[in-house]
Amino acid sequence: MSLEYFFNPKTVAVIGASRNPKKIGHVIFRNFLEGSFKGKVFPVNPNAKEIFGIKCSANIRDIKEKIDLAVISVPAKLVPEVLEDCGKKKTKAVIIISGGFKEIGNIHLEDQVCRTIKRYNLRVIGPNCIGVFDPYSGVDTFFLPRYKLERPAKGDIAFISQSGALGSVVLDWMAMKGYKISRFISYGNAVDVDEADLMEYLSKDKETKVICAYLEGVKEGRKFYKIAKKASKKKPVIVLKAGKTHEGTKAVSSHTGSLAGSSLVCSSVFKQAGIIEAESLEQLFDFARVFSNQPKPKGKRIQIITDGGGFGVLTTDWIIKNKLLLAAMTEETKQELKKAFPAHVVIKNPLDLTGDADAERYKTAIEACLKDKNIDMIAVIILFQIPTLTAEIVDVVSALSERKKKPIIVIAAGGRYTEVLKKSLEDSGVPCFSYPEKAAQALRALYEYGGGK
Amino acid sequence: MSLEYFFNPKTVAVIGASRNPKKIGHVIFRNFLEGSFKGKVFPVNPNAKEIFGIKCSANIRDIKEKIDLAVISVPAKLVPEVLEDCGKKKTKAVIIISGGFKEIGNIHLEDQVCRTIKRYNLRVIGPNCIGVFDPYSGVDTFFLPRYKLERPAKGDIAFISQSGALGSVVLDWMAMKGYKISRFISYGNAVDVDEADLMEYLSKDKETKVICAYLEGVKEGRKFYKIAKKASKKKPVIVLKAGKTHEGTKAVSSHTGSLAGSSLVCSSVFKQAGIIEAESLEQLFDFARVFSNQPKPKGKRIQIITDGGGFGVLTTDWIIKNKLLLAAMTEETKQELKKAFPAHVVIKNPLDLTGDADAERYKTAIEACLKDKNIDMIAVIILFQIPTLTAEIVDVVSALSERKKKPIIVIAAGGRYTEVLKKSLEDSGVPCFSYPEKAAQALRALYEYGGGK
Repeated sequence: MSLEYFFNPKTVAVIGASRNPKKIGHVIFRNFLEGSFKGKVFPVNPNAKEIFGIKCSANIRDIKEKIDLAVISVPAKLVPEVLEDCGKKKTKAVIIISGGFKEIGNIHLEDQVCRTIKRYNLRVIGPNCIGVFDPYSGVDTFFLPRYKLERPAKGDIAFISQSGALGSVVLDWMAMKGYKISRFISYGNAVDVDEADLMEYLSKDKETKVICAYLEGVKEGRKFYKIAKKASKKKPVIVLKAGKTHEGTKAVSSHTGSLAGSSLVCSSVFKQAGIIEAESLEQLFDFARVFSNQPKPKGKRIQIITDGGGFGVLTTDWIIKNKLLLAAMTEETKQELKKAFPAHVVIKNPLDLTGDADAERYKTAIEACLKDKNIDMIAVIILFQIPTLTAEIVDVVSALSERKKKPIIVIAAGGRYTEVLKKSLEDSGVPCFSYPEKAAQALRALYEYGGGK
Repeated sequence: MSLEYFFNPKTVAVIGASRNPKKIGHVIFRNFLEGSFKGKVFPVNPNAKEIFGIKCSANIRDIKEKIDLAVISVPAKLVPEVLEDCGKKKTKAVIIISGGFKEIGNIHLEDQVCRTIKRYNLRVIGPNCIGVFDPYSGVDTFFLPRYKLERPAKGDIAFISQSGALGSVVLDWMAMKGYKISRFISYGNAVDVDEADLMEYLSKDKETKVICAYLEGVKEGRKFYKIAKKASKKKPVIVLKAGKTHEGTKAVSSHTGSLAGSSLVCSSVFKQAGIIEAESLEQLFDFARVFSNQPKPKGKRIQIITDGGGFGVLTTDWIIKNKLLLAAMTEETKQELKKAFPAHVVIKNPLDLTGDADAERYKTAIEACLKDKNIDMIAVIILFQIPTLTAEIVDVVSALSERKKKPIIVIAAGGRYTEVLKKSLEDSGVPCFSYPEKAAQALRALYEYGGGK
């Protein structure tokens, strides 16, 4: 059965919904009521008559309407029974939030869950997970208060996480950075739906342009490989694999109870499947952001435009270290810029617009580089601190980036003022980096993804 | 002559002080008046009678009092003449902010400046720099408005930067992050005072515990080596060298006009001089923060304490990749923790306090690790998002860190809520990291600095 009901249910039952604000079931039920979810939500709890004025059922089977999605948040030992009821009710999709199974040694209980799933042919995410966040439909099974965990805006990056805590941290961090998301799924112990199933679904999902995953292990190697290979032909698939050292692998086994393969095997399998491997969480999203909104480059020749010499030098170093090239402008471009700029702006690469640069000077430079056939990608360093630069620079760069002719990324570091302007750029689809090394690594990945070697 | 007058002048003349708010000389003069500087400030400008109600002199020689520090911000071609006057006035220290010398090919003009310096035996920082920021004395020659460029609080990390723009960006970024500073110097073309002189001064400076530098080139190799070797025996000296690739070196020569050595030569010279080399700006400050407030570890055995499995696994991977070890607790510690914790907390490394951890559980765990002779350093992962964790955790961790028995660092990622709590920790002297890889690299550097291999 399709996974569609996890993301677009019309009816949702929250089993374990509670009037006690400290209970997870309370927060989840409330999220559905108070968030942007447009469907119907039913609380299920044998010990309550109504919650928030909505009639409570003792059992999911007592609900008269069909149920698309059931979210289970009851103590582990009650899960098999409750799941049985979901089966009888012919629930289309079930998310089991509850923990306390294989990950703490309760193998017997997890086996019981597996048998029930088979018997009723259910589709289940979890247990031991935080479930789904979908900014389009408003499905939000996260039991963390919004002041502690912000939610990102609608976008086109999907994120799959085996670890719930890690996933929630990432979501919170994305929201702060202004990175946007299409679907988010924490799948925990994966008794039924696993990373491969989710990847398959997302590869066909029209809101998703880039698929990211944090994996500790892979459930079924062959299935994963087959699906990933197919998915990566449609969309970029970027994976961060944890448990790559011997010690890390041991740590994994006691976390999600899954088997982590050795580093070497994983990396070569990933490569063969067309998966792009990220070294860290930060890099995962660095890559995702450039893949989601930048065109593929024709080559690896990069023009650096800057208003500060030091950052130009650092960026040059990292471009070379990442086996990319400094572009050499055509004579035509050089002449054009020489005419347009004051004498103290020396026309070369890095092109230092100097400390008295304004938005107009950046515009002239970027436009010339967009036209120049010797330039494949543009790295724009903006030190917002210089006195002549106003917030207008944000409009200029985002308008030029919207043409999508060549990849344009921005490098900018600083304090609060800089962060605000960077978020505006990010919001309008310009990937921003604080550090030259990250920018160069992302451009390298984009170049490789575009077919370069 | 000592460099003391650059940092602790009693009298300051701002040559080129202006009534026009758009002029650099205006901002600098105003910074002295409105900032925390306690000494006397004199404006010098032949075209103004008074600025902000303070009588303006046409020439520094017209000021009756002795002048400790002159800050020059006049067009390049006027600098030699003005400097001549500073010499005649017997000014103790001069900062030349003005650019337009060797860096744009005006070698003759720079030579003229050099001759004047020799003739009068002056001590000069610059030209082509943004000068000095000293949070202790209030000297602040930065011509950037405070809303665009925040200033960090008093601390014990000194930063020397050849590049003014890069230096100012770093300062802005430090302020936002809550990193503190002792002295900051952008020295530009270094016609007199160079990186080695500054290093020597800072090695004896009682407010400075760690010396950081961004270098593009070194002026006199032998002098630098000699001084750095001496300085690094007193305090950690951390350097980020730009222009390490062939292309980067070329970019340097047209930036500050200095000669950048090859990567290999630089790195081995640094090593012999006892300098710790950082790979990036971020790493420079990651190292500086742990060196400034953490004790040297006895060994490389690290205990990870976490409330989320995924981050525990990632941290394990990076600890191993950085050639550190996972500590093995003594039986005694294990028994103690087993008694103290609920059954679902499995006693191992990483120690996962799980998603229902509270501040008390962290306290018990960290205290036990501080006592355990099998543990040299503690990496505390705090995912602030979990429901049971209150802001109290900040007090608990900072109080335990204050004992300075073993290095304790924190890894925490997330959004605004997390960032606020991290800044509190950072303020109380606990180095915080967003990403496991950075934390592991910093612990590795601390271990090496402590004598480990």
